[in-house]
Amino acid sequence: MQIPEFQKIIESGLEKQLLSLIPNHSIAKAYTWASLPPGKLFRPLLAAAIYLNHSEGNTEEFNQLNSNASKMAAFLELHHSYTLVHDDMPCMDDDDFRRGKASTHKQFGEWQALLVGDGLLGASWRLVSQINHPALLSFFKYSTWTLGPKGLLQGQVLDLSEEMTLSFENLILTHKLKTARLIQTALVGGYAISDNPNFKMAKAYHKLGEALGVSFQLLDDLTELTEELGEHEQAVNPWLWASIKSTETLINYLEQVKELAPSDADLLQEVLAHYFGTIRGKVEAHRGSIIAKLSEEQLRPVESLLKILSHAK
Amino acid sequence: MQIPEFQKIIESGLEKQLLSLIPNHSIAKAYTWASLPPGKLFRPLLAAAIYLNHSEGNTEEFNQLNSNASKMAAFLELHHSYTLVHDDMPCMDDDDFRRGKASTHKQFGEWQALLVGDGLLGASWRLVSQINHPALLSFFKYSTWTLGPKGLLQGQVLDLSEEMTLSFENLILTHKLKTARLIQTALVGGYAISDNPNFKMAKAYHKLGEALGVSFQLLDDLTELTEELGEHEQAVNPWLWASIKSTETLINYLEQVKELAPSDADLLQEVLAHYFGTIRGKVEAHRGSIIAKLSEEQLRPVESLLKILSHAK
Repeated sequence: MQIPEFQKIIESGLEKQLLSLIPNHSIAKAYTWASLPPGKLFRPLLAAAIYLNHSEGNTEEFNQLNSNASKMAAFLELHHSYTLVHDDMPCMDDDDFRRGKASTHKQFGEWQALLVGDGLLGASWRLVSQINHPALLSFFKYSTWTLGPKGLLQGQVLDLSEEMTLSFENLILTHKLKTARLIQTALVGGYAISDNPNFKMAKAYHKLGEALGVSFQLLDDLTELTEELGEHEQAVNPWLWASIKSTETLINYLEQVKELAPSDADLLQEVLAHYFGTIRGKVEAHRGSIIAKLSEEQLRPVESLLKILSHAK
Repeated sequence: MQIPEFQKIIESGLEKQLLSLIPNHSIAKAYTWASLPPGKLFRPLLAAAIYLNHSEGNTEEFNQLNSNASKMAAFLELHHSYTLVHDDMPCMDDDDFRRGKASTHKQFGEWQALLVGDGLLGASWRLVSQINHPALLSFFKYSTWTLGPKGLLQGQVLDLSEEMTLSFENLILTHKLKTARLIQTALVGGYAISDNPNFKMAKAYHKLGEALGVSFQLLDDLTELTEELGEHEQAVNPWLWASIKSTETLINYLEQVKELAPSDADLLQEVLAHYFGTIRGKVEAHRGSIIAKLSEEQLRPVESLLKILSHAK
């Protein structure tokens, strides 16, 4: 699979889904601004790879308005977008920029951002309702748990309340809720709409998603060490105040990713290799400034796991 | 049915549902503050009456954590609560008070209100996912339409953008989206979980809900004429700038309510009679100040319809 090409197919499908969901009104501009162009589509890509690995499906389905595959991919991305729109608002993280352009509230105003966030959240559930699959109800129950008040939203609460930085345990809990729950939903969601899903395998993807989600966040923090960090970013970056624990935890979760990702799920392996390859490149390029913050002995086992997981790509 | 007694049962069930959905964390206080004690439970009462009219169910189900009836009632009320929490925020209507106490953002802070609103929205869909009924998927599709970006949320957009007051037609459209869509969802939702729902009857309740929802809002505006109104309230109160059209439209929708409410749905008739009786009492008590704003000839046909609809209660 050519990942950049596949990203384009998913993006094209996402646009179709979004346009079908929003009103013919000037507010549509704010909806599209908030969602398009998307980021790297990490969550839809994961769902897509797993779906294709477990079904007779093909990549073109992701560009078809009425396919389950395209609905699921768009659900994941629009749900992600809503969290970003609300996160950027002045009463939350107060960010003026997102993906190289003004954030939604900066461009359109605050009430617009609040309602567009609510609307993308509503649109995301509408997409779920349009999926036609025997496993849909199980997935609906699962995803309202992962993304609800005890899931993703509680991760945001721990972050904003600054409880996240009270201890390393709190930090990992926050990552599990705020970051991993949506990634788990992507893995489980891609599998749920496949040809013959079973509970045992869904549970395995749920577990893999947690390991991947926490790794994703710790690696993001690690590669951020190369940048000038603001006060809040320093407080939430555990490599600056708990580097031994961060190393041990990351290694543990990366080992789990290696163990849990099915070796015969070749597309999933490709998406993971692509992702870990990108991270490995970043770590390599900034090795000097990373080692200034944590020792070479700490970094080395991480590097070797990244090498394995990226299939030396 | 004793309506105040039944409200207590629904409120007790709502509390059970809410507590099962929110985390064991200090944020729980903000979730309960935003939702309890509830308002008059108009939407759950409508759903409950219709459910009971079309099934072998009983009122106690509304106090049982695992009953469809209690899930549906709580879905409607928590969804309503989320819209109120977000509506009250400074970037929206900027209201410091709600139901006789501080609004959620005033009591707990803005990011708390934003996330609690998102969380109640998520919780409401989680309740839908927990309903066990053959018609659930149809209702899920329907309600993500009524409450989504083309429904309730677009009503909020028209309100906040002030397009609502550009014409009487815009105002009615806003009421249809912002107020009626959730009331329609209550009627259709109560029917959807009944013993043997069919599409034709669901459609009839959908239509009744629109007439009831617009009437509800126009009557609310009418009874507000007795109060001192702020600038925004004056702008959105059509009785002050389109009283002839308001009268004609209200009469038209009240006639529809009378026509469309099934005469054999006795509990629904009771809930409607209770509601219209309350409105009638308000109109009567403030007849003088209402007539100072619109003529007695205009008011009289409204009064006589209210008399019929309240069964002279």
